[in-house]
Amino acid sequence: MKPNSLQELYLEQLRDLYDCEMQITKALPKLIEKSKSSSLKQALNEHLEVTRQQAIRLEGIFQKAGEKPKGESCDGIEGIIEEGDDLVGDIKDPDVRDAAIIASAQRVEHYEMAGYGTARTFAQLLGDQSAAQQLQQTLEEEKHADETLTQLASQINVNAAAGGSVETRRVA
Amino acid sequence: MKPNSLQELYLEQLRDLYDCEMQITKALPKLIEKSKSSSLKQALNEHLEVTRQQAIRLEGIFQKAGEKPKGESCDGIEGIIEEGDDLVGDIKDPDVRDAAIIASAQRVEHYEMAGYGTARTFAQLLGDQSAAQQLQQTLEEEKHADETLTQLASQINVNAAAGGSVETRRVA
Repeated sequence: MKPNSLQELYLEQLRDLYDCEMQITKALPKLIEKSKSSSLKQALNEHLEVTRQQAIRLEGIFQKAGEKPKGESCDGIEGIIEEGDDLVGDIKDPDVRDAAIIASAQRVEHYEMAGYGTARTFAQLLGDQSAAQQLQQTLEEEKHADETLTQLASQINVNAAAGGSVETRRVA
Repeated sequence: MKPNSLQELYLEQLRDLYDCEMQITKALPKLIEKSKSSSLKQALNEHLEVTRQQAIRLEGIFQKAGEKPKGESCDGIEGIIEEGDDLVGDIKDPDVRDAAIIASAQRVEHYEMAGYGTARTFAQLLGDQSAAQQLQQTLEEEKHADETLTQLASQINVNAAAGGSVETRRVA
């Protein structure tokens, strides 16, 4: 598919985001399993449920537009998830691993923020205020998830710094 | 390398960001060449220079820590750049292509925001206030670049909506 109008580019962006949500739905349970902190597990579990609702929201937008949500492969989120899996799988110290899980999850959130911000603006320009509002809702949920992870990091990273190597303790 | 302390994870994150800057330095000239809008060309050119300075800033942090900046491959930004290249290369309408270039560049900026936010927080926790300040400076530059692209998009996307297909004009 070669988008040659803003409408086609908008649909391409929505399909990219739909594949993104599908990939995140598969990836999150692995991160939850590897988390030590119960607060982090809970936050990621809640975000998994929110992610499923965001995919359903996208399906509704496609249905209303008479289009299908599938057909794009989101290479951006694929790279981010692979990078996170490689990093997290290598780490034995559970507090340091939690810090890496947060670092990876925040890259995922930021990818989605950029994507939903773009799609929301395209929907506004194309005069679809209903879709624009729904995409804005998802954008706010992604920002909220990112802020929750930042708050969790402030506690978890202190544990990681305190329990790290001698060099880490020296400078912490 | 398997990071098992916050210090090691911090260095891994910095190497990831260094490779990220190297990849962006290679990718931006191609996007600049494909841009129609002179304002977009100028903004991307300015960001290319800022990106080179950010890489030098990272080299300084590594030098002070007695470490080397190379050794990590940033799969996240690789996926985002590949996805952007594939999308932009497919688009013939120059205004729609500019809209796609902005969409792709904002994904790049958001990846960097997440990465530099994490690295800045790790530097603070590890007691390296000088590095934390430099990483904060880069983070602010990335946010500024993202805001500039949002402002440019408001004009360029209107052109894309106006010049698009019959269907686009109907709903715009």
